[in-house]
Amino acid sequence: MRIGVIGAGNMGTAMGTIWAAKGHQILFSFTNGSMRLQKALAAAGVNGRSGTPAEAVAFGEVVLLAVPWAAVGEALKAAGLLKSKVLFSCVNCLKPDFSGLAVGTTTSAAEEIARAAPDARVVEALPPMAEVLAAAHHRLAGQQISTFYCGDDAEAKAIVAGMLRDLDLEPIDAGPLTSARYIEPNGMLQVQLAYRMGLGSRIGIKLLRG
Amino acid sequence: MRIGVIGAGNMGTAMGTIWAAKGHQILFSFTNGSMRLQKALAAAGVNGRSGTPAEAVAFGEVVLLAVPWAAVGEALKAAGLLKSKVLFSCVNCLKPDFSGLAVGTTTSAAEEIARAAPDARVVEALPPMAEVLAAAHHRLAGQQISTFYCGDDAEAKAIVAGMLRDLDLEPIDAGPLTSARYIEPNGMLQVQLAYRMGLGSRIGIKLLRG
Repeated sequence: MRIGVIGAGNMGTAMGTIWAAKGHQILFSFTNGSMRLQKALAAAGVNGRSGTPAEAVAFGEVVLLAVPWAAVGEALKAAGLLKSKVLFSCVNCLKPDFSGLAVGTTTSAAEEIARAAPDARVVEALPPMAEVLAAAHHRLAGQQISTFYCGDDAEAKAIVAGMLRDLDLEPIDAGPLTSARYIEPNGMLQVQLAYRMGLGSRIGIKLLRG
Repeated sequence: MRIGVIGAGNMGTAMGTIWAAKGHQILFSFTNGSMRLQKALAAAGVNGRSGTPAEAVAFGEVVLLAVPWAAVGEALKAAGLLKSKVLFSCVNCLKPDFSGLAVGTTTSAAEEIARAAPDARVVEALPPMAEVLAAAHHRLAGQQISTFYCGDDAEAKAIVAGMLRDLDLEPIDAGPLTSARYIEPNGMLQVQLAYRMGLGSRIGIKLLRG
């Protein structure tokens, strides 16, 4: 396949290099570091070339958009018309300092609950589906399910982490209560997979490390 | 530990029952199904009792809030003052029909990109950290990393799923492009764990099934 890469940064060059090794043809464009681009071109060998974003669009059956959120406008402008092209976006709208998302998340149930109960020490954790907890064992395919928790009170968080362990879940500290803005959509994603995408309720998330 | 449960539904009774089996004392309150409550009380045995939300607060060293989003206001009102109590919230702000989140998520990078490039067939997938992809192997602790993808064009999605497989990632179809509202916070959660919580960039998510 011919793949046009717009955004030859860490992510775009890493993905493009692997695809080139798999035999795909890659055109890298829109880099902010010519050293990185040269390294990717060397790694891609005969399957790699470079050009402009417009050339990436003309070249690719698929266009990978792999730019920082702040550069999306400029990148799409340079790309020009995308006429039914498959645009594979791996752009997340991270704020430049990685402190949160620039669009889309404004609050969370946990923050609203903390506002409604200002005298409580709120900790949020979203365990797996009730069906998984109601079963005799709470592991899936033998593996322990990870459960993210967040809050602004260290002692309260430690108590909740212990309660999660008592459910045979692996507690993962996700930071302050505002992290509920990420944990709740993650829970919703699992609801979507279970009920809308047909995977059923015996699913869960595991955080891999290695 | 003494745990007051507000919301003796599927989730609250499942968690309370397990904790009771671990030796914790549970007071269940605020049920919408007395059969379920009776079953939970029977399962909890000497470690279980029932009462009002205010009694759950008075009883519990920790209060578990496990009600549907729409019932939060009523539940907190019935709970009364929570004076520095640890409030373990497992409430997600799911819409009643499970079609999305009622608060907090309004849009996503992918939807904004699709608006900016209306002639493209946008598919979003957020692969793991570039550091994981740049390594010789892309598995963590021997396990394949799951990568959620979403979009509104079936053919385009199938192409992107294949490209993810070429990266040795497990593609998980998360539905329409609006699912980016859940995928992007999930990506942000991993950024938060890697950089703010100190887990480093060699992390990833696996969807467990079983």
